[in-house]
Amino acid sequence: MSKKQKTSALHEQDGVSQPEITNKISISSIKKKRKSQPSTSTLVSDILNGNITALSRAITMVESSNPKHLVQANTIIKQCLSHANKSVRIGITGVPGVGKSTFIEAFGLHLTSLGKKVAVLAVDPSSSLSKGSILGDKTRMEDLVKDENAFIRPSPSGTSLGGVARKTRETIILCEAAGFDTIIIETVGVGQSETAVHSMVDFFLLLKIAGAGDELQGIKRGIIEMADTIAINKADGDNLKAAKLAKVEFNRALHLYPQKANEWQPKVVLCSALNREGIDELWQLILEYLRHTKSNNYFNSNRQEQNKFWLLQTIEERLSADFYNTPKIKNALKHQLKLIEDGKTTPFVAAEYLLNLRN
Amino acid sequence: MSKKQKTSALHEQDGVSQPEITNKISISSIKKKRKSQPSTSTLVSDILNGNITALSRAITMVESSNPKHLVQANTIIKQCLSHANKSVRIGITGVPGVGKSTFIEAFGLHLTSLGKKVAVLAVDPSSSLSKGSILGDKTRMEDLVKDENAFIRPSPSGTSLGGVARKTRETIILCEAAGFDTIIIETVGVGQSETAVHSMVDFFLLLKIAGAGDELQGIKRGIIEMADTIAINKADGDNLKAAKLAKVEFNRALHLYPQKANEWQPKVVLCSALNREGIDELWQLILEYLRHTKSNNYFNSNRQEQNKFWLLQTIEERLSADFYNTPKIKNALKHQLKLIEDGKTTPFVAAEYLLNLRN
Repeated sequence: MSKKQKTSALHEQDGVSQPEITNKISISSIKKKRKSQPSTSTLVSDILNGNITALSRAITMVESSNPKHLVQANTIIKQCLSHANKSVRIGITGVPGVGKSTFIEAFGLHLTSLGKKVAVLAVDPSSSLSKGSILGDKTRMEDLVKDENAFIRPSPSGTSLGGVARKTRETIILCEAAGFDTIIIETVGVGQSETAVHSMVDFFLLLKIAGAGDELQGIKRGIIEMADTIAINKADGDNLKAAKLAKVEFNRALHLYPQKANEWQPKVVLCSALNREGIDELWQLILEYLRHTKSNNYFNSNRQEQNKFWLLQTIEERLSADFYNTPKIKNALKHQLKLIEDGKTTPFVAAEYLLNLRN
Repeated sequence: MSKKQKTSALHEQDGVSQPEITNKISISSIKKKRKSQPSTSTLVSDILNGNITALSRAITMVESSNPKHLVQANTIIKQCLSHANKSVRIGITGVPGVGKSTFIEAFGLHLTSLGKKVAVLAVDPSSSLSKGSILGDKTRMEDLVKDENAFIRPSPSGTSLGGVARKTRETIILCEAAGFDTIIIETVGVGQSETAVHSMVDFFLLLKIAGAGDELQGIKRGIIEMADTIAINKADGDNLKAAKLAKVEFNRALHLYPQKANEWQPKVVLCSALNREGIDELWQLILEYLRHTKSNNYFNSNRQEQNKFWLLQTIEERLSADFYNTPKIKNALKHQLKLIEDGKTTPFVAAEYLLNLRN
């Protein structure tokens, strides 16, 4: 009898087929694993020690739709708070094709080479549909993903921008507590996602490439006004001349805008992420911006304003959602909208009617 | 005995001093007046006949804080609705000093000379404090106020922009029902009032004067993007050269902005309200704009969007106001804001806490 036959016979004696045994084994090992799920306090101390596994676990809790996880996530975040806030938060936007991944990789590697710890997050409310178009594929940042001083996390999924933004804001806190001193938040600018990212960062970078002459055509409203700096990427080879022309046009455009609340005159810079050119110049510019906004106290007051904004925003979003999702209101709203369209009521009379349905 | 002495004697016989009699008379006349207050249906038919007294009365009801008046106002507005909407609504903004009153007078008189009926309204949320800085003093438009085809109404008072805007929107409907085919809505642009006016008009005009070279310095964010046309006023005498230069700079600026939803390329025109120059050119431009936006259906879809906006806006304002004005929430909010400032909680945890206080 061969060894194999023996084993088979043993199993046959037990009257249990092999696959079932395998199942038994794996279930018991999962149970063991579940038991070893670290406590909240262990997670917090691990995060504070810079443990990436603990950080990832906590972020997964933040992103969870399980109310129990959310309670635990809130406890962890609260305990991390006093260790957070000591970073610089940089928002980066740019349409697909602008070379955002290549840029973030070059920028991130430059920062880690300077001894920085860099976390790269993303806000993409469409990610649940497109299955994570941003950062979903970590191979897009091959070298950065291998860098032990870098942490890359794809966009949380979610159907509402508010939800995605909340999760990202809380992830920032966790990353900061884990010792990341530079937080990069990427967005492709679907819907209002740029505004959301702008409301959670200290510095907002618009990434562009030289276009076909009319540089501002097709730029979404309000983006230019948000930008603290415009970086024209792919300023290399045959593109260089067009990039230089684009720089002139953007500079003129920026000059035409009224002064920003941070009293900073936005700049235009050229770079080539591919050739790793212009990256340090941009970083020096960000440092200059930080000195400027810290000396005029905009940096701190802006963070406080952002906190207040998110508090009120969250409250108001929930008040509206609770109201509009009431079945009674849902049906009545449709009817009132029709009446308005037909010129049979005014928006204010309709609003009054709907609000009275609450009671 | 002179006539005067006789009268005096009569009064003395009555044993009543003259002032008291005067009071009695005036009180009884007021009582009579109150009794003669027209019914809702009379008011509506008078408004539809273009009766200015009836129109003014109905507007006073819209502006009243008395709930009974508001109910009556809503009934009147509903009955006027099917007769409204047949006008062009023009928003005009410009900082003090730009010659807004002179401009509106010249523009309004030009329109009445063309057979138009012009209503001039204003949105100024600060008017309750400044006692009506806009249009409060009708003598600023001496000729227009005497024109029987013009109707001028100062800004309703109110502490919130939402309230002032609501009243003005409803006044537009009443004016239209009374046969006014051109509604001009003026604002000085306090806070978000330009955005509010922009959300209730078909065409938005930014009034400017030539500055000291850097024309866009000091212009509030977003205003340029709202403008369908920029009119540079006081383009006369020694100012003409500077005005022409300003026109070039504004044209360049407008060109740099992305295309508007109405697919209209905003224009820059020169005018001198004082000399009544450039006024008809501007009106021709507005007519061109109307042809353009009616042919691409923006005109109608924009009005529908505005209605929907005001419905949702009104609901959300009230939901927030009801929430924040609850004494329990008021106190807790202060405390939570302090905790956020001290880094002891996050905006989202604080929001959750406050929302749970509702139950």
